[in-house]
Amino acid sequence: MKIIIDAYGGDYSPDEMIKGAITAVNSIDDVEIIITGDNSQISSKLTEFGYTGNKIEIVHAPESISCEESPTMAIRKKTESSLVKGLNLLKERDDIVAMISAGSTGAVLAGGLFIVGRINGVKRPALAPFLPTIYEDKKTLLIDCGANVDCKPEFLRQFAIMGSIYVSAMRGIENPKVALMSNGVEETKGNEQIHKSYELLKNTKEINFVGNMEAREMFSGDYDVIVCDGFTGNVAMKSAEGTLNIFNKILKQEINSAGLFQKLGALSLKKVFKKLKTRINYTEVGGSPFVGLNKILIKSHGSSKAGTIYSCVLQAVEIYKSNYIEKMKEGIEKSSLSGE
Amino acid sequence: MKIIIDAYGGDYSPDEMIKGAITAVNSIDDVEIIITGDNSQISSKLTEFGYTGNKIEIVHAPESISCEESPTMAIRKKTESSLVKGLNLLKERDDIVAMISAGSTGAVLAGGLFIVGRINGVKRPALAPFLPTIYEDKKTLLIDCGANVDCKPEFLRQFAIMGSIYVSAMRGIENPKVALMSNGVEETKGNEQIHKSYELLKNTKEINFVGNMEAREMFSGDYDVIVCDGFTGNVAMKSAEGTLNIFNKILKQEINSAGLFQKLGALSLKKVFKKLKTRINYTEVGGSPFVGLNKILIKSHGSSKAGTIYSCVLQAVEIYKSNYIEKMKEGIEKSSLSGE
Repeated sequence: MKIIIDAYGGDYSPDEMIKGAITAVNSIDDVEIIITGDNSQISSKLTEFGYTGNKIEIVHAPESISCEESPTMAIRKKTESSLVKGLNLLKERDDIVAMISAGSTGAVLAGGLFIVGRINGVKRPALAPFLPTIYEDKKTLLIDCGANVDCKPEFLRQFAIMGSIYVSAMRGIENPKVALMSNGVEETKGNEQIHKSYELLKNTKEINFVGNMEAREMFSGDYDVIVCDGFTGNVAMKSAEGTLNIFNKILKQEINSAGLFQKLGALSLKKVFKKLKTRINYTEVGGSPFVGLNKILIKSHGSSKAGTIYSCVLQAVEIYKSNYIEKMKEGIEKSSLSGE
Repeated sequence: MKIIIDAYGGDYSPDEMIKGAITAVNSIDDVEIIITGDNSQISSKLTEFGYTGNKIEIVHAPESISCEESPTMAIRKKTESSLVKGLNLLKERDDIVAMISAGSTGAVLAGGLFIVGRINGVKRPALAPFLPTIYEDKKTLLIDCGANVDCKPEFLRQFAIMGSIYVSAMRGIENPKVALMSNGVEETKGNEQIHKSYELLKNTKEINFVGNMEAREMFSGDYDVIVCDGFTGNVAMKSAEGTLNIFNKILKQEINSAGLFQKLGALSLKKVFKKLKTRINYTEVGGSPFVGLNKILIKSHGSSKAGTIYSCVLQAVEIYKSNYIEKMKEGIEKSSLSGE
């Protein structure tokens, strides 16, 4: 299967994107990568990184889109950019199953919406990453983590439906437990938007709604799908990221100012800390798929390195094999919401 | 100075409240505690915990308010509750400077608002805790962390003003840096509410507005005051709490499944982890003052133990000595918002 990697837009573009592509084709059977980017630059980088195979194709796209540009404007005007060229290919060619970009979130979302297009009946596609939990074999879907900052309650209801379908397809869970992110578990908790959304979710027969949850329980493993608007989801995710940062920094400060015995202790725990980091740090696990589009589009973290890009390719393969797009089409059509 | 401690409403009430009160009067000069609660129960507990001094007074209040009750209803009807009795005392008696409660957040807020009352010109009092940062000597104020889940942009503007006054009074910082919590630093980021609030904050001459910030930077120490509505603030705080929980749990899991060498390493780091916990865990540091009221009211975490209650008393003393209520009255009067 063919997967596109956008060479530009990430903090470590294009080098880490290209290295990620090489790892992917070398490690995953049946995967071929199309890199969109400047032909001569990418091809000389491929040579530099020692790739001589025939499973990476370059599609010439000399322009790149920065985070400072207006997303919709850039999508419309920069037709020679690695992102727009890639998205057009993704839309047009049936043999291409997915695309990965670490570029400007706004541009990736706008491009997904306007170029790739929504599944019939989907009101708002949403960014939906899996979060780690305290159980090694369990993950929780957060939908939306940043695509839609202003949401009507009916959007949240559809996020719940889309999230349920996605989790069922990806994890084989029947009747996934859906919770609404609020400032308390009681039905009375939440702001106006949450009160209205709670009412809607309670009466949505397609989902297994278990009520409100608090951000404190995001990683508890008690829920399969957590629903919120993109602004709230973004704050929740970034607060978690900030907390890990401060934890790491303070731990280092304290170890540095401790005695030799403690320093040796810390050294002995190096592997444990590394494992911990892998288990907990969602930014290293992969990207966020933009759920609700006609094709698989994964937004990778802006600071993605080769390992993240490789993870995103693995994720794309898993999503493709789950047949989620077809299931989503069926589910949305069946749901009482479609055609509204 | 006299400070009230509400004996009931916390997960470990009344024992830990009473122990906290004993530590406070034994450790802090000039502090006398009034405990509101059932006279015979509290007095037998004081004897049980070995307190024989005369710096703790009991005010008989046999009822308690649970988290399941409607806050406003409970405040109105349960006049014999430890919370309502305490708040009435706080309002009426000039010799009482502050009150601490670990009870139902809703009831504490409603009681603060309806019994103690707002400073003239304050639209919405707000919960404003200090967050830890990567710098040991620096803290950042988050306002609002949960009192007002639905906020008009003008409320956020006043939070910025109140936060600035509070931080100046408490930390002696001139022109504290105020940031607005959003999903990105650019002016274009945020939802509708944030866009409107940004415009207002930019044009508020009383504050030093530095623009949007992301939840990732909550603990970076780059800001003195972070402004958000109570729903967003609650999600940000609880996400951080959840992240610390999963970090601790996974760390324990990984250490338990590691070798003897690693276990010894972890043991040697016990002190470091403890220090880390003290520096990072805001729930142990104290409570959130309800800023904008005529008196000092501190909401302590529901799971507060004696140490937290003692910290809250220290915090109340510090706030009182900062003369913040007078400064807030002056500042709000001066600010262009008062009388609007």
